[in-house]
Amino acid sequence: MNIGVFDSGFGGLTVLRALLEQLPGANFLYLGDTARLPYGAKSRQTVARYAASSARFLVSEGAEYLVIACNTASALALDAIRDAVPVPVLGVVETGANAAQTHSETRDVLVIATAATVESRAYAAACQRRGLRALEKACPLLVPLVEEGWIEHPVTTEVLRIYISELMVEARAEMLEPDTLVLGCTHYPLLKTQIERAVPQTLRVIDSAQVTAKQAAQALGSGNGLETGRAQARFFATDSVTKFSVLGSRFLGRSIENVDLVDLGG
Amino acid sequence: MNIGVFDSGFGGLTVLRALLEQLPGANFLYLGDTARLPYGAKSRQTVARYAASSARFLVSEGAEYLVIACNTASALALDAIRDAVPVPVLGVVETGANAAQTHSETRDVLVIATAATVESRAYAAACQRRGLRALEKACPLLVPLVEEGWIEHPVTTEVLRIYISELMVEARAEMLEPDTLVLGCTHYPLLKTQIERAVPQTLRVIDSAQVTAKQAAQALGSGNGLETGRAQARFFATDSVTKFSVLGSRFLGRSIENVDLVDLGG
Repeated sequence: MNIGVFDSGFGGLTVLRALLEQLPGANFLYLGDTARLPYGAKSRQTVARYAASSARFLVSEGAEYLVIACNTASALALDAIRDAVPVPVLGVVETGANAAQTHSETRDVLVIATAATVESRAYAAACQRRGLRALEKACPLLVPLVEEGWIEHPVTTEVLRIYISELMVEARAEMLEPDTLVLGCTHYPLLKTQIERAVPQTLRVIDSAQVTAKQAAQALGSGNGLETGRAQARFFATDSVTKFSVLGSRFLGRSIENVDLVDLGG
Repeated sequence: MNIGVFDSGFGGLTVLRALLEQLPGANFLYLGDTARLPYGAKSRQTVARYAASSARFLVSEGAEYLVIACNTASALALDAIRDAVPVPVLGVVETGANAAQTHSETRDVLVIATAATVESRAYAAACQRRGLRALEKACPLLVPLVEEGWIEHPVTTEVLRIYISELMVEARAEMLEPDTLVLGCTHYPLLKTQIERAVPQTLRVIDSAQVTAKQAAQALGSGNGLETGRAQARFFATDSVTKFSVLGSRFLGRSIENVDLVDLGG
């Protein structure tokens, strides 16, 4: 089975990494729309146009199932993607909200994400549909800190301390009793250890990459031969394939070779 | 006279702000290619394609002179822009290097910029042509810090301290005696005060927005009625015009109204 995985850039590789572990019998096609990244600062209309063309490309390459491993695209463009392609589509906002529903006992959930994801209110809406109250916070410095490679760095620790303490103040002001924090950006799993150190011990951190891979595996069912094997992955990028190999390897946790350059226009 | 000013986003508004002061008799057309920003992480080929289409748009709207207020586009795509349009084109890399040539006595110059600008080696080449040695450093966290609004913020002070101290160590290792630091990104003028505090007192900080406006005024000559008047500016953006108004006003230092949405494809 061919599974397409889409992100605006490299962050979605944290989801692919988890998928490779969960579904080693599948063939994966990963597209990073790196010529047009980041989606996080762009409008719904623009993100929908970019994401739909990216999804169509993956299906034209043979994808039979799509994982939208990009929070901004999942938040702003999931309907546009579903309209654009004839295959099942799973988005990371849904999977994060599902995991929060499973784990939260207080029914109060915190979400950290990019500005566009927060402005879309997609997590709040997805949580509300599941009987949860969600408080979202934009953390726009975390992606550049990850991309700078400042993972174990005092500046990152301090930025996280500031963002989390602001979030906890807001939660108290809203009279929430959160027990769950959803990482609403696929870059954030690389900071999971630092984030777990920064939050109160009563908060469980939901790694969206892990829960997405788990739910994709559940959706595809068992007994289809996907649980065993030696997973194959092909990589496509809309900008520099060299840069994709170098930066992407950090997110995937192993070296990336043979990236194909794709022109989606723009 | 109609002067076109182009940037991938908002940073070029610091150049427009300086131009409005220097050439109050001109009409300005500003284009922010916000649907495709940031250029800083993209390849030469992609940046050239985006910048050429943006330049053609400004000329089609009546621009008779173009200021490329985007360091990445100036570094990677100035020739492509000059090939694409029939009007004079001034780029911020040239103007920064010119100012360094004027001010440096030791002939050793430091440049801070985005990763793509540094990788292009455009400042080093422009400085070398002017008999200067240049040491460049990528500072990828500064743009997101400015966009987060953390101008007077301890984290920004600490990030600047780290970047500048790394740069001074590299300068000593290269046996340089720098007396000039060029701000090679149009976001950085907003941090000028903080940068001046972070560098040794022997370093003069070159504000690329100011020197670009000054050199544009010199190139256009005197006696053409551009020195007096009430400058007019029209604004175009390829993504959300609301966001352009809100974020752009911080860079321009005054409110921005009537932004037109432009579709350049992509």
